[in-house]
Amino acid sequence: MPVRARDLGLAWGKRPTGPRNAITDVPGVLVGHRTLRKGDSIRTGVTAILPHGDNLFHGKVPAAVHVLNGFGKSIGLVQVEELGELETPILLTNTFSVAACAETLIRRAFTEEPRIGRETSTVNPVVMECNDGFLNDIQALAVTPADAAAAIGAAGEEFASGAVGAGTGMSCYGLKGGIGTASRRLKFDGTRFHLGALVLANFGRAGELRLPDGRQVPASASEDTPERGSVIVVIATDVPLESRQLRRVATRAGAGIAWTGSSWGHGSGDIFLAFSTAQRLPHDPSAHILPRQSLAEARLDRLFEAAAEATAEAVIDAMAAAETTTGFQGHRRQGLREII
Amino acid sequence: MPVRARDLGLAWGKRPTGPRNAITDVPGVLVGHRTLRKGDSIRTGVTAILPHGDNLFHGKVPAAVHVLNGFGKSIGLVQVEELGELETPILLTNTFSVAACAETLIRRAFTEEPRIGRETSTVNPVVMECNDGFLNDIQALAVTPADAAAAIGAAGEEFASGAVGAGTGMSCYGLKGGIGTASRRLKFDGTRFHLGALVLANFGRAGELRLPDGRQVPASASEDTPERGSVIVVIATDVPLESRQLRRVATRAGAGIAWTGSSWGHGSGDIFLAFSTAQRLPHDPSAHILPRQSLAEARLDRLFEAAAEATAEAVIDAMAAAETTTGFQGHRRQGLREII
Amino acid sequence: MPVRARDLGLAWGKRPTGPRNAITDVPGVLVGHRTLRKGDSIRTGVTAILPHGDNLFHGKVPAAVHVLNGFGKSIGLVQVEELGELETPILLTNTFSVAACAETLIRRAFTEEPRIGRETSTVNPVVMECNDGFLNDIQALAVTPADAAAAIGAAGEEFASGAVGAGTGMSCYGLKGGIGTASRRLKFDGTRFHLGALVLANFGRAGELRLPDGRQVPASASEDTPERGSVIVVIATDVPLESRQLRRVATRAGAGIAWTGSSWGHGSGDIFLAFSTAQRLPHDPSAHILPRQSLAEARLDRLFEAAAEATAEAVIDAMAAAETTTGFQGHRRQGLREII
Amino acid sequence: MPVRARDLGLAWGKRPTGPRNAITDVPGVLVGHRTLRKGDSIRTGVTAILPHGDNLFHGKVPAAVHVLNGFGKSIGLVQVEELGELETPILLTNTFSVAACAETLIRRAFTEEPRIGRETSTVNPVVMECNDGFLNDIQALAVTPADAAAAIGAAGEEFASGAVGAGTGMSCYGLKGGIGTASRRLKFDGTRFHLGALVLANFGRAGELRLPDGRQVPASASEDTPERGSVIVVIATDVPLESRQLRRVATRAGAGIAWTGSSWGHGSGDIFLAFSTAQRLPHDPSAHILPRQSLAEARLDRLFEAAAEATAEAVIDAMAAAETTTGFQGHRRQGLREII
Repeated sequence: MPVRARDLGLAWGKRPTGPRNAITDVPGVLVGHRTLRKGDSIRTGVTAILPHGDNLFHGKVPAAVHVLNGFGKSIGLVQVEELGELETPILLTNTFSVAACAETLIRRAFTEEPRIGRETSTVNPVVMECNDGFLNDIQALAVTPADAAAAIGAAGEEFASGAVGAGTGMSCYGLKGGIGTASRRLKFDGTRFHLGALVLANFGRAGELRLPDGRQVPASASEDTPERGSVIVVIATDVPLESRQLRRVATRAGAGIAWTGSSWGHGSGDIFLAFSTAQRLPHDPSAHILPRQSLAEARLDRLFEAAAEATAEAVIDAMAAAETTTGFQGHRRQGLREII
Repeated sequence: MPVRARDLGLAWGKRPTGPRNAITDVPGVLVGHRTLRKGDSIRTGVTAILPHGDNLFHGKVPAAVHVLNGFGKSIGLVQVEELGELETPILLTNTFSVAACAETLIRRAFTEEPRIGRETSTVNPVVMECNDGFLNDIQALAVTPADAAAAIGAAGEEFASGAVGAGTGMSCYGLKGGIGTASRRLKFDGTRFHLGALVLANFGRAGELRLPDGRQVPASASEDTPERGSVIVVIATDVPLESRQLRRVATRAGAGIAWTGSSWGHGSGDIFLAFSTAQRLPHDPSAHILPRQSLAEARLDRLFEAAAEATAEAVIDAMAAAETTTGFQGHRRQGLREII
Repeated sequence: MPVRARDLGLAWGKRPTGPRNAITDVPGVLVGHRTLRKGDSIRTGVTAILPHGDNLFHGKVPAAVHVLNGFGKSIGLVQVEELGELETPILLTNTFSVAACAETLIRRAFTEEPRIGRETSTVNPVVMECNDGFLNDIQALAVTPADAAAAIGAAGEEFASGAVGAGTGMSCYGLKGGIGTASRRLKFDGTRFHLGALVLANFGRAGELRLPDGRQVPASASEDTPERGSVIVVIATDVPLESRQLRRVATRAGAGIAWTGSSWGHGSGDIFLAFSTAQRLPHDPSAHILPRQSLAEARLDRLFEAAAEATAEAVIDAMAAAETTTGFQGHRRQGLREII
Repeated sequence: MPVRARDLGLAWGKRPTGPRNAITDVPGVLVGHRTLRKGDSIRTGVTAILPHGDNLFHGKVPAAVHVLNGFGKSIGLVQVEELGELETPILLTNTFSVAACAETLIRRAFTEEPRIGRETSTVNPVVMECNDGFLNDIQALAVTPADAAAAIGAAGEEFASGAVGAGTGMSCYGLKGGIGTASRRLKFDGTRFHLGALVLANFGRAGELRLPDGRQVPASASEDTPERGSVIVVIATDVPLESRQLRRVATRAGAGIAWTGSSWGHGSGDIFLAFSTAQRLPHDPSAHILPRQSLAEARLDRLFEAAAEATAEAVIDAMAAAETTTGFQGHRRQGLREII
């Protein structure tokens, strides 16, 4: 069991959490990892987030993207912005393994719908990334399409945080980063809902980290390198939202990132994607005009707070779980627990 | 009765029109003008478009904006982009009369809801503009808040096109421009719908105009001035669309503008706003989660064609109706009918 | 002399400040206020920021905008985004006085260039706003064009912070808000530069405020109203930047706002504008291809930190200076100094 | 020698062309193809556009993107939008071969700079695509990284148009599409410049095509399928432009596309990228503040016209050159020359 942020007394905000305090508190959402640790130099992997376990090409979900700082090499965001929907799992990996992961999503979609690219439209793979080149030999392009498939295959409601999956080789505030998660509980019209965040934390300069209790974590060493990281935040909710509203929710991940001390460095690809599981969008709808639901706009404030809180806590959660790691060229990142 | 584009045999596209071939074919939409012609130099006015005749602050409509070229001084677009809704009439006027028109929209909203800015949120006036400074003494700031109120007060299903309202002093392709309109009929799930466009046409260089039959209209004189015009397109439909979809529809006004010969000049504020009357968004909803409808995404193609066709035809419609006009400093713009 | 944030020991970040710790540390930048306090209910005003004291229409400056949350009614942003330049002073005021301020900027430009809208292009007034309707009778539309002119006329290097100018009636985190400022010193290629921020602080819910030392300021009362505020941040620098770079700098104001505790509420118009005074863009350039300078992209990190630090400190600066104010309908906002 | 649009009397606009009437009229720009025709079903390939033949990672060029309709699966656009620069060749290919092409660009960059992802930042591969699944067995993923490398290796000033490279299996207006090009000559400050366009034309419904002389080309058959194509336009110029200006130029490709009859279909990924070769941006600049040049903004009008003209003509150029092609499942697209 990974150590969680709350095990260290590091909770962010006052809203109640879901039962797992994880993105999988949103019913149906699944997360899986494929972790690659080989020899002295491979410290990387893939993390898969599935909005649901069914056929995604035929049960698309509303989605939106906010690019806070576009120093990044993702694939798939242009179409999410235009159509406001997601039709594959989301894969997270290192910067140079986007291609291998995209290939897996494309081939997997062929099995969901053999007409793709022929009698019907093509499929839009979504892969986002951070640069783990400090701890991982990133030029080795170690991730294969089979690794991406393994991450999807491993997806479940329980998943590890810390130096696992795409987070295996990541760094955060000069310390060991990785995968973290958190969730918040909400109530609308008397019904219980959840919002969950999953963060691939690989950003921030040493000495900038600020904990929820106000403490600033000093740099452990002469960590004066410019930021060449990134941070990816995936937000899931079962509240019915249209894609314009999801974009507004995704934007608030930036507040959560800032709360942890960052001023959003130049060299960081800070990209946030939000989706709602409340409604599925059929690929071949049976009618032209479709019933939908959406939250009254002014009620978004609660989701904004939940998104910022869950994002900030998920960053700390990644660092709480991540063990000190040594990798490529003997580079080393300390785990947060060693110094606080 | 104004001369219409189709009276001159100038129809664009093959889709059938609505009964009036006007934006007011969309049920509930109303248009009104206030035309100012004073002495030798005032040739300007205001045109009002109302999504419906009821209280707009309490019955907002989904809306979206596409800024094709932002050399323009509108007010209200930022909030439409964020919230995806319209809560006042849309006013069109000359560049320096935006302030007078905005004041009228604000004061009018106070009567719709006295709590505005106090116990509830403020109101977002939407005013768009073109520069009529060739025919009109634009520095005179001739439009008053009362003129703006008069345009709203005059709104009805029947309205004039040509050199009226905000179009009184406008120029287009070196000829007389103004207000034009067109509509297209659509069918979804066996039900009839409409899409209508209203254009404030004040763009294009002499010699660039291309008619639907392929004819290119030569420059009538040494009209070599750089483009300092603009074009505003308002698109209405009763098809249920969310604001992201409306933005996609609004974008296609740009194709219609290009069909008439333009390459979208640097000095032109080319701004398009689309709204849907199918659903009203209450200011104080009685529940948190609200039922909505939206068109299946792939069906948008028909609306895209309708929007491009109606926009292109509305440009020609404005020119077909507009009489030759002489104004400020003796400047003169010929009506299209004089030269074709 | 207003009380400054640093007088209370509330500095943000480690970068050195400029000599005044104000936006006017950027050479040439001028700020002026017009404060309206009349009877029991008028608590409003205008604040003017001038990039330089010369003819702005003929000496435009590179500029850019970031709309973090577009629940706002500014004028002029569309053209700044398209052309990347500013050609009037920036005026800040209350939501319903944008029109009066815009009129003043337009008329003032006619005196700078009588050909405007006639032989040359029109002018783009930039006015941004927040809702001061809690302390001010905002429906009175108390600001006149003459008030806007007075704010411009009062512009100088020394200016007050707190409940003055546009900040007179503003609220922040349930306490008294207003105008605040801060600056940071930078060095590039051995030369000294500055970045300064001016904030119109009118955002945040009671109980959310976080001070630079990590303290959280509790709500002083049952301040449970939804956020209907806004925050405007203007950033000036004499570092040569192109407008794309200025947009990146402006974006970091959002980090500064988040540092003070906000999750960027739904009902808040959070709009940031940045300009550079390093180069002037002539309206009628004498050549087609013009020499320019810009900062090497990777050096922006220092400006990002400076922008976030100066913004966060300017928020606290506004609250440090603002006195407890009573206004419309007896509403009252406490000054920060009364409770910390 | 391919048949060119002008060989058929199909020129667009009045501006003079460059000597080749091709994108390679911009000095330094190189284009190469790798064409895959295998058996009955593989009709695809790769086209490479190099801004110059030197080390691109160390000699980046200013660039910008305009996404007219984001139904597309490109990689690399997010970073171009943020940083305004291009640091690899541009590769065009079919929708599902983006990953293979991206891998080649990444590995090629390692040889340009071995520190990538380690001691310096990562590299941003730019690959854009259209769906050739009507004529090509797109699910075969036939393009390999070696094919992508071959396209780059083949780059030169002379290159074929029509059904070659990425255009091998593309369709346009129900006829055979492919690669087309055109250029326009410009003069600023007495110096000669060029703007060139290269189009991957795979869009439009049968019956919509409009030729420059106004003729409408009827559908050759019952081509009633919805648009599932795309169009990619790459614009090069040696006029010095900053990335904001390049974005404005790229936008005008949309006018050129509309001139040929399209209303920009829902299912089409219409993406335009423009770059300027006038200045190179070093990866490791020797100073913080760098000299730059840019065109006076109002002079952009000539580039806008040139971009629209060259784009429209390049579409016709692709169709003029493309031979009738039979491919996957016996599908067949006629060449334009067979029917006009």
